[in-house]
Amino acid sequence: MVRVGIIGSTGYAGAELVRLLLQHRDVEIKWYGSRSYIDKRYYEVFQNMFQLVDDKCLDDNMEELADMADVIFTATPQGLCASLVNESILNRVKIIDLSADFRIKDVPVYEHWYGIEHKSPGFIEEAVYGLPEINRESVKSARLIANPGCYPTCSFLSIYPLAKEGIIDMQSIIIDAKSGTSGAGRGAKVNNLYCEVNENIKAYGVLTHRHTPEIEEQLSYASGKEAKIIFTPHLVPMNRGILVTAYAKLTKSVTYNEVKEIYDSCYNNEKFVRVLDEGVCPETRWVEGSNFADVNFKIDERTNSIIMMGAIDNLVKGAAGQAVQNMNLMFGFDETEGLLGVPVFP
Amino acid sequence: MVRVGIIGSTGYAGAELVRLLLQHRDVEIKWYGSRSYIDKRYYEVFQNMFQLVDDKCLDDNMEELADMADVIFTATPQGLCASLVNESILNRVKIIDLSADFRIKDVPVYEHWYGIEHKSPGFIEEAVYGLPEINRESVKSARLIANPGCYPTCSFLSIYPLAKEGIIDMQSIIIDAKSGTSGAGRGAKVNNLYCEVNENIKAYGVLTHRHTPEIEEQLSYASGKEAKIIFTPHLVPMNRGILVTAYAKLTKSVTYNEVKEIYDSCYNNEKFVRVLDEGVCPETRWVEGSNFADVNFKIDERTNSIIMMGAIDNLVKGAAGQAVQNMNLMFGFDETEGLLGVPVFP
Amino acid sequence: MVRVGIIGSTGYAGAELVRLLLQHRDVEIKWYGSRSYIDKRYYEVFQNMFQLVDDKCLDDNMEELADMADVIFTATPQGLCASLVNESILNRVKIIDLSADFRIKDVPVYEHWYGIEHKSPGFIEEAVYGLPEINRESVKSARLIANPGCYPTCSFLSIYPLAKEGIIDMQSIIIDAKSGTSGAGRGAKVNNLYCEVNENIKAYGVLTHRHTPEIEEQLSYASGKEAKIIFTPHLVPMNRGILVTAYAKLTKSVTYNEVKEIYDSCYNNEKFVRVLDEGVCPETRWVEGSNFADVNFKIDERTNSIIMMGAIDNLVKGAAGQAVQNMNLMFGFDETEGLLGVPVFP
Amino acid sequence: MVRVGIIGSTGYAGAELVRLLLQHRDVEIKWYGSRSYIDKRYYEVFQNMFQLVDDKCLDDNMEELADMADVIFTATPQGLCASLVNESILNRVKIIDLSADFRIKDVPVYEHWYGIEHKSPGFIEEAVYGLPEINRESVKSARLIANPGCYPTCSFLSIYPLAKEGIIDMQSIIIDAKSGTSGAGRGAKVNNLYCEVNENIKAYGVLTHRHTPEIEEQLSYASGKEAKIIFTPHLVPMNRGILVTAYAKLTKSVTYNEVKEIYDSCYNNEKFVRVLDEGVCPETRWVEGSNFADVNFKIDERTNSIIMMGAIDNLVKGAAGQAVQNMNLMFGFDETEGLLGVPVFP
Repeated sequence: MVRVGIIGSTGYAGAELVRLLLQHRDVEIKWYGSRSYIDKRYYEVFQNMFQLVDDKCLDDNMEELADMADVIFTATPQGLCASLVNESILNRVKIIDLSADFRIKDVPVYEHWYGIEHKSPGFIEEAVYGLPEINRESVKSARLIANPGCYPTCSFLSIYPLAKEGIIDMQSIIIDAKSGTSGAGRGAKVNNLYCEVNENIKAYGVLTHRHTPEIEEQLSYASGKEAKIIFTPHLVPMNRGILVTAYAKLTKSVTYNEVKEIYDSCYNNEKFVRVLDEGVCPETRWVEGSNFADVNFKIDERTNSIIMMGAIDNLVKGAAGQAVQNMNLMFGFDETEGLLGVPVFP
Repeated sequence: MVRVGIIGSTGYAGAELVRLLLQHRDVEIKWYGSRSYIDKRYYEVFQNMFQLVDDKCLDDNMEELADMADVIFTATPQGLCASLVNESILNRVKIIDLSADFRIKDVPVYEHWYGIEHKSPGFIEEAVYGLPEINRESVKSARLIANPGCYPTCSFLSIYPLAKEGIIDMQSIIIDAKSGTSGAGRGAKVNNLYCEVNENIKAYGVLTHRHTPEIEEQLSYASGKEAKIIFTPHLVPMNRGILVTAYAKLTKSVTYNEVKEIYDSCYNNEKFVRVLDEGVCPETRWVEGSNFADVNFKIDERTNSIIMMGAIDNLVKGAAGQAVQNMNLMFGFDETEGLLGVPVFP
Repeated sequence: MVRVGIIGSTGYAGAELVRLLLQHRDVEIKWYGSRSYIDKRYYEVFQNMFQLVDDKCLDDNMEELADMADVIFTATPQGLCASLVNESILNRVKIIDLSADFRIKDVPVYEHWYGIEHKSPGFIEEAVYGLPEINRESVKSARLIANPGCYPTCSFLSIYPLAKEGIIDMQSIIIDAKSGTSGAGRGAKVNNLYCEVNENIKAYGVLTHRHTPEIEEQLSYASGKEAKIIFTPHLVPMNRGILVTAYAKLTKSVTYNEVKEIYDSCYNNEKFVRVLDEGVCPETRWVEGSNFADVNFKIDERTNSIIMMGAIDNLVKGAAGQAVQNMNLMFGFDETEGLLGVPVFP
Repeated sequence: MVRVGIIGSTGYAGAELVRLLLQHRDVEIKWYGSRSYIDKRYYEVFQNMFQLVDDKCLDDNMEELADMADVIFTATPQGLCASLVNESILNRVKIIDLSADFRIKDVPVYEHWYGIEHKSPGFIEEAVYGLPEINRESVKSARLIANPGCYPTCSFLSIYPLAKEGIIDMQSIIIDAKSGTSGAGRGAKVNNLYCEVNENIKAYGVLTHRHTPEIEEQLSYASGKEAKIIFTPHLVPMNRGILVTAYAKLTKSVTYNEVKEIYDSCYNNEKFVRVLDEGVCPETRWVEGSNFADVNFKIDERTNSIIMMGAIDNLVKGAAGQAVQNMNLMFGFDETEGLLGVPVFP
């Protein structure tokens, strides 16, 4: 049994990690970390866990945890993981960081967009960007995983095949993304109150959202060219789900079948990425609760453009599910172990 | 023009007061009180007011306000109004208190259920319980109005005719109430976050909710007998609306027509209480945004019981609308002025 | 592998059966029955099943199905199962009927409340009311299961221990129930459109809902006395979940600990019924997607009453999950097989 | 008093017309047309109208109506108005058509996108596209108004100033739009059931939505150049509201102040279009229930692009409110009469 510690287990991503890991056959959770609820029973915070988890919440202590666990998930605010990690810890335990601390290779870019100083720049090079569909082999041998952001996961999986194939203009990409409210976290903020979110849709973080450089960096790797995107996130009155509608100019004339073939050749062997049938648009309801990413596209000859669409559950493929997928690879488990839950509808 | 001051204008009830008063022909708002947003423009807190209100939010100052206004609405936490009011102020300005401070005549009962000391017990006797359908004449000449609670308004209007007529057992009443989330206020609490409320229904404050003694007191007045109720509020994933489903034993055998006649004789001349047609159940959607209270009933011969049902918009008839209705009576306006907005559906 | 046929697989309960059975280790679905979508691929109706189910929908044909399957689930409108079942079929295949056809032992009562003639009264006696917590042993050997209704399951599990123990007056029970909208089915009706349900709560079927006699019959068995209830269902703007708030007069004075002991002795060995800690109210969000029923109670000395509360997922413990639980018992599987999914929150 | 007839008064747009017209001082509704509910009282369809409207629903009969009314609103499916209108009718009564029949000047374009033959092409030339902010003078003297579509209204008001000024590339415009579910109409369709829409976001009609040519035509008029757009509508789980996020390439370098000045010069005298403060994004909640269109923009120097944003209530400024605004102009009323309702929040 792999021993797991979770730092930040009482946020939404942390709670989803718990849900998924409880359904994983080879894992035992040893540490329910939560600064806000120290000494409270975990099920008192999340009553769905009543009679399933009896542990109490513990304070953050990565040193101690490194001796008790084989892997630590950090589902914490930006900067925390970078401030705790060191060589001694990484020698003893693997870390899967769900924050953004190790996602961006360029330190000044990180510090500019996140507005904080990076405390462990020395580990950025080593950290593996944990998108298994792209970096599977590196993930397997990694000590430190930078688990991708929710928007970047959905955006990247939607665009990646065409970026890699070179058939879209990497300077023309517009990503209009829509997210459920669990993506805003469990902090007590007026803006996230029920009555503020319900019966409303809004854009936010226009041209300033911190997932922008992460998406650009990964798209640049994929295409071998500098990607420059416009990224506009929106908040939707629903709990879970991210939908991406992305637009790009085509660099050459292509048919439906040619593009379908490009997607299929990327994802045919991927269990968790589903290229939908012609004409079927991804919808968040069809992936809810699951680790699936549904993608599809539509060509617009009139404007020589292509629309790329994707849907994920932001808490699963966009956070906790992908983290478990990375863990499975790192410990030699079947990549899908604990992740085969069928999407829950309605 | 009547000059109005609002203390607590940036909560949901305060904002609804602003919305209604802006549509009132004989009123001018002089004071947008808000401790949390002092010096911020009101429209920056509520962008629906952009280009409609240009004022800045002001700190609480009832002394100063008493000289600037003809009437003050206090949409504030329990205890604040009682701590500010005094004879000098009441000599200069009328007060409509949307908190519970002056609703309950029995000070120990108030202090027991609310857990705070009452700072102005001397004004309780004078304060008029501002349910115009019952206390219209007293309201007209009042200096100090205790504006009823949202649950009590809906519960009382549903049950009142039968309590007054003496055909229900006043010790057998069970009120199962359901409220939209704006009733929980605009405070930043985890429990009221979108993801906590959405896709959920729960009871809360079971047997301990502070509206219990208010309902019992008013029902006792209406029936002339001591009322003892069970009151169970529930939180519903919607913004506005209260639905009451109340149960009582009948004290004698009655027909539909007899009961209908009892309701009609109470409410036939009431603009804002609608006794629905036979078999039609009140629904919150049909009163949303309006000052209507829809009521109806159903007799169960099998158990010698009656089901009394009511629906209101908790922010209008349950708070701000009723407060404006009281103001209209106090200043000699048409009782319906500013309150004839048609319910908004969908 | 047990071979399963589903008649009515494209309603919400049918779809939930598919979801749960796909996660069951010992089962293979052989027949996706759906009159409305004959020859359409199942995943075209429910895109969450894309790449998980490749079968086409088939017409109803119980004769043929009896030869291909070991068990048939009928998730169909009232009357259909009763019109199809016969001795020859029951000799070949077990049937778990999710409709109400075999739930009520008294044919005139069934025909009165459902307004249709019963086509197979001869099998009512044999049919087992499939509430495993009560009828576990009978379920194991049954050929025909009457799978309980969603409201009855939640109501009964909340009230059963006290009814059995005789400490509540069986003529005083009031059940105020609240359901998510999946309980209304997947038929195209104006009343169930998004804009009609959203931002609304309403009672419906007041004193006429067809689950009333089912609850009364089961409570009468449990208590050995005739139960007469008031049952009021409400429609809540959420997808899943039923919350029951039930009220009854106590027949004698009891303490919290005595009542807790009564609940515990009933449910301590039940995996799927959770008696919550003192003061914790059941909420639908904590059971969503799972087979759990959460129950609790609160004593009101003031009125010599008790409030009994319960929450289930109407599609799981209230329909498909309970059906699978019954199947597990009938085929000698672990009762929890396929049903250990952790509740999904948020 | 202007006498009004409504054909299609029991759809969502028709019901909103009724709500607004009841609050209009100079209007009397003479005809509640509804094929589906003939002879039913209007308030039985919409209980919010109980005690406000006592009329019964009437069948469609434009001939008869032309003699009884001064103006007819047609809130009907595509093709109906075109099939009923003729010179004799237009000589007697003004028509405001909320369907698309007279919005597009090019008949083959209409017939291609709508898939039906146009029955009255002779009146297309005469019909005025009823966007008062653009065509105010023509509206005043019109006999036949083509009331703009909901998406086109929001898209056009967001983009118009820049199109007119020539600072955006008219072939580069991408409109990513999000709509509440009332836009899908009140027809009983599975796709619009509560459980299908709730907890979901999806794109639909990708590259095929019929509002595309309407937007292109109007943008071409505004800019004097052929506009070619990508238009992607999305369905959002909320009742009301449209949000438009539009992207275009700039044709020259501009500053915030320059662009702000362009918007202001267009809309400074427009009561219903609000150009928000710098950095404030339009949100649907701030316009709900009102006739406001909130717009704003953000310049992206990195990609030489501009993001244009707009929010309206699809049933008010996107349908019924705009129709009343047109009526006010046609009959010489104050343009804002009946339309000054403050946005309802929450």
